[in-house]
This record gives sequence, C-alpha cells and structure tokens, in this order.
Amino acid sequence: MKKLLMVYSLLIASFLLYLFYYQYQSFSANSSNSSGSVLVGNISEKYVMVTFDSGIDYWKSCLKGFEDSAENLNVSVEYRGATQYDVNEEITVLEQIIAKKPAGVAVSAIHPEALDITINKAVEAGVPIVLFDSGAPKSEADSFLGTDNYKAGVIAAQKMAELLGGKGEVAVVTIPNQLNHEQRKQGFIDTMKSQFINIRVVAIEDGKADASSSQQVALKILKEYPNVSGFFATEASGGFGIGNGIREEKKEGQVKIISFDTDKRTLDLIKEGVISETLAQGTWNMGYWSLQFLFHLHHKLLKSLPNENKGVITPLQIYMDTGITVVTKENVDNYYAK
Amino acid sequence: MKKLLMVYSLLIASFLLYLFYYQYQSFSANSSNSSGSVLVGNISEKYVMVTFDSGIDYWKSCLKGFEDSAENLNVSVEYRGATQYDVNEEITVLEQIIAKKPAGVAVSAIHPEALDITINKAVEAGVPIVLFDSGAPKSEADSFLGTDNYKAGVIAAQKMAELLGGKGEVAVVTIPNQLNHEQRKQGFIDTMKSQFINIRVVAIEDGKADASSSQQVALKILKEYPNVSGFFATEASGGFGIGNGIREEKKEGQVKIISFDTDKRTLDLIKEGVISETLAQGTWNMGYWSLQFLFHLHHKLLKSLPNENKGVITPLQIYMDTGITVVTKENVDNYYAK
Repeated sequence: MKKLLMVYSLLIASFLLYLFYYQYQSFSANSSNSSGSVLVGNISEKYVMVTFDSGIDYWKSCLKGFEDSAENLNVSVEYRGATQYDVNEEITVLEQIIAKKPAGVAVSAIHPEALDITINKAVEAGVPIVLFDSGAPKSEADSFLGTDNYKAGVIAAQKMAELLGGKGEVAVVTIPNQLNHEQRKQGFIDTMKSQFINIRVVAIEDGKADASSSQQVALKILKEYPNVSGFFATEASGGFGIGNGIREEKKEGQVKIISFDTDKRTLDLIKEGVISETLAQGTWNMGYWSLQFLFHLHHKLLKSLPNENKGVITPLQIYMDTGITVVTKENVDNYYAK
Repeated sequence: MKKLLMVYSLLIASFLLYLFYYQYQSFSANSSNSSGSVLVGNISEKYVMVTFDSGIDYWKSCLKGFEDSAENLNVSVEYRGATQYDVNEEITVLEQIIAKKPAGVAVSAIHPEALDITINKAVEAGVPIVLFDSGAPKSEADSFLGTDNYKAGVIAAQKMAELLGGKGEVAVVTIPNQLNHEQRKQGFIDTMKSQFINIRVVAIEDGKADASSSQQVALKILKEYPNVSGFFATEASGGFGIGNGIREEKKEGQVKIISFDTDKRTLDLIKEGVISETLAQGTWNMGYWSLQFLFHLHHKLLKSLPNENKGVITPLQIYMDTGITVVTKENVDNYYAK
C-alpha cells in the first residue's frame, strides 16, 4: 500500500513536471513569436560612438540619433572620443574601446587613413564598425553614413545663384586639403561653371577653420574684388568670420553669405540677416542609422547573397547620404538645440 | 513511512514552486523587454513593393529583403507591379494600391518622372513612399535606395584593367538614354581615361537590352576592331549576347567580358569561363532597408532637427548606395538562387 502511494506520488510528480515543461515550451514559442522581434536587443549590449574634438556642439545631434536608436532597440550606448583634434588620441581611445569587445562602434575618422590599422584589427576580431560623418574608405569597415559633400557644394551654388539672381562675382572660403571641404568647394565651382555662366568664382581662399582668419580673408577679398556679392563658407567658423567682416564693412544683406552647419553663432547671424542661408547636415540620421546598422551586424541579421545563411558577418558595404537641408531666416528657429 | 512520504511530497512541491517562480521571473524580464520595443509592428500593417516587368528574376532578391525585414518587424507585405515594361500599367497599379492606404510603398520607377504625379498624391495623402533601384528624383518622395551606377562603371573599369594587365582595346555594349546605363557607361569611360591610359575604349554600341541584338553588335565590333580584348555590358542580356558572340568566334577566355547582374544565364557563362566577371547589385539590401525606412516613416520615428518632436512625417531625404560585389568563377556558386 505504501509502495503504491509512492508510485502514485512519483506519477503525479512526473505529470506535473511534464505539464510544466509543456507550458514552458509553449511560453518560449510565444515569446519568440509575439515579439517576432529580433529587433529587440539586450540592455547589456553596449554600442560606442567615437569622435574627435568630442566636446563640440556638432556631435550632439549625431549622439541624440544614436541614443534614440538605442532606446528603440533596447540596447546601451556610450559616447567617447579624442577631446582634441588629435589623430593619436583618437587611435588610443579606439584601441581602448575595442579591447573591451563592445557590440559595435560608430567611428567618425579624424583622418581618412590614420585609423585603418585599428579599424581593421576590430573587424578581424569580430567587432562591427561603421564610419559616419568622416569615413575611412580604405579600411575593412567598408561603409559610410554622412553627407555627400560634393552634392552639398552643388546645392550651395544653386542657392547662391537664387540669391544673386543668376549673376555676379562670388568667393569661396574653405580649408584646403581636407577631403570633405575640397568636395564642397568643387561641387560649388563645377555647378557655377556648368549651370550659371553669369556667375564667376573670383577667389578661393583658406579660412583656416578659424573665425578671425576668415574675417581677414573676407576683408582682403572685398578689397581686391569690390564687386564680390556672395561668399560660400565650407564650414561654420568661416561663415561666422565672413559675417563679422561683412558687418565691419556695413554690407550686411548686400553681400550674401551661405555657410555650413548650425552652431548657435551661425543661427544667430541668420536671425540678424548677416548670413543668408546655411546648410544643415543630417546628423541625427547619421547617428540613428549607424546604430541600426551596427545592431544588424552584431545580431547577424544581414545577408547579401540569395543563398547565404543569415549568420555571416558580411561587409556592410552600404553608403548612406544623409542629406542636406537649407536653413533660412524663415525656418531658423527649428534649428536651435533645445 | 507516512512521514517520509510527506517529506517527499513537500520537497516535490517546493521544487515545483521554485521552478514556477523562476519561470515567472524570466517571463517578466522578457515581457518588459518586448513591450519596450517600438520596432515591432502589427501584422495588419501592410507594406507594398511595386515594380515593373514584375515577373523577372531580378526582383526576387529585392522582395526577399523586403520580406525578411517584414518578418523582423512583424508586419505584412504584398508584391505588385506592372507585368510588362509599360509606364501606364505601373501608374495604374500604383494608383490602385495608394487608394487602399497601405502603411507604405516601395516603388521602383520605370521612368524617372512619369510616376511623379501619382507619387506626390500618395505623399500628400500621408502614404509613405520610398524609391528603390530606379528613382524618381523630382518627386516629393525624396529618397532612394539602390546602386551608385557611376561607381559601378568605375569598378567595372578597374576590374577590366586587372583582367587585361592594364592595356588593350575595349568596347561597351549598353542601352543609350536610360539613366542608370548612361551612368555605368560614363563611369567606365571616365575611369579608363583618367586611370588607365593604355586602355582605349574603341566602340560604344546599343545592345537594345536584347541577347541576339547584343550578339550581332559584338560580332560587328570584333570585325571592325579585331584587337578588342574586353567587353563591358551594362546589363545582363547584353553580357549573355556578347558571350554567345565570343563563343561563335571561339574566343572564349581570350576576349574578356564583364557583365551586370546575376541571372542564371550569366552565372552559367561565368562557370563555363565565357564571362569573366559580373557585377552583383545589393538587391537584398534595397528591399530590406526600404521596408525599414517605410516602417520608420509610418510610425513617425524619424526626426531631423534638434528640437523637432518625433511624430512629424519629414521627407526622408536619405540616399542609400547599396553597393556592388564582384562575381567570378571562384564565388559564382554563392549567387545561384536556391
């Protein structure tokens, strides 16, 4: 009788265990179904954004996009970078980060080749890397999210032609030998030559990415070419410096300025009518989609061949032009950071 | 003995309770995960892919990307298109789809402007649209996912130069006046001129996107320029036709062919050593990211300005170059559809 009781208890116990197991299984099936969501990560997954001159305003919107993306994917982010405009500092920071094997790293490269060895080491160690804003086209992390800078120059030329009614003399203040600035300048010049034959680019000068140098350069150009009625600055300090120069000459509004980016000084000068327009880059999109791509690489969700199994880390080989929007007096209020 | 039985039962009961508790805990952890995710849609949300010549193989991998993306996001997809290469048919199909107010539509435009009125109507009615593979750059759906065709031409030229050891005479068989083919041709020619001065492009002919026309054209070129040792075909029927021509002349392997896309005939000729290489487009990525973008537009997850609230449908204004991979005899097996 006692033995029988034992057997019963064992039977009941096994039945309960079976039920439990069954329930557990259907639960797991449901959970993987109901979220269907392979696009939900784990909060312990850490993605890192690495920049240079890491304290400047420009990166804020990139980082906001990165953070918004992380929130949508339920993963963690960290922001790091070289505090100075210093190649070796960015390399060191990147080396440190990679050593910790994060889920992925979005890098804005201070130099198109200097980070290649470090980036390649990361890729070979299985750490997904994407490049944003400033690329590393010869590295193994063959992808890029950022502005098509030549196209930005084309847009600047078209906007300048609008402002000048299609004729006049213009000047460019830029930074020589830096790829993105060379491309902006070239897009501007080529477009004037091919589309606006009555507009002549009479001067191209080095503003040294510095407001007071750019101011001096602008004054020099106005002296040599008094008919110049438009300036294109390929970066924000240049635009601000030219603005100050034009103000000194009391030619606000008369001489048009098209600048780049949306730091506060630039937006203020647009409000005051000194700078006519500035070109805003798709910084939020750079950060947002960088993280989306890294997540897809980390979770091996991408395939590029018809019969490739998901599960291979393929080179992403995607280049995203995140676009340009034109900021004027009419919409400038939308561009102040809150 | 009864006591022992009691002890056993208690032990079993506590074990089961512990298991339940453990299961409950892991359940709550999971559920808070999945509810946090905004990247999970509803299966009733329908996204539509619209093409032309909708039955051809080329779209299969685009659609697979679209479907894989939908699976990851837990939404539904539908595939539609003009069955013929017919502008009006695609317009009609698109009008019908838009009338049903789907969650979003990915369109490959048969003509760069002909669909603009319909696309703009959709955008104004709040139906998100992205363009993939063939764009509509003047429409209000200002975004594009596809191949950078000029760059594809550059890659073709570099690969041809490799095959020919940097010298020789080459010919291009293309389709005049179709934008993507013009760009591929131009990228090829410009690169030969600027990077490979010992390679001369001696003939550029119309293959009419037809295998037998391309075969005739290839034979004609070989007659006029018997030293031609390389052909670049900007589309698959051309490459196949040239291959047949080269075979007819018994010059397989001797005259190199670089073709475009990865239909079965092309892959077979690569296996047989008639076509040297072909350029595969990132079709899976086109479909995959089209749906991701549409989902983000439909769910108003994008913002582009620092102080913009999420919740505005902004123009996406993103252009994604989905890349090119080079198919050779070594990796051709990966490209056959399973």
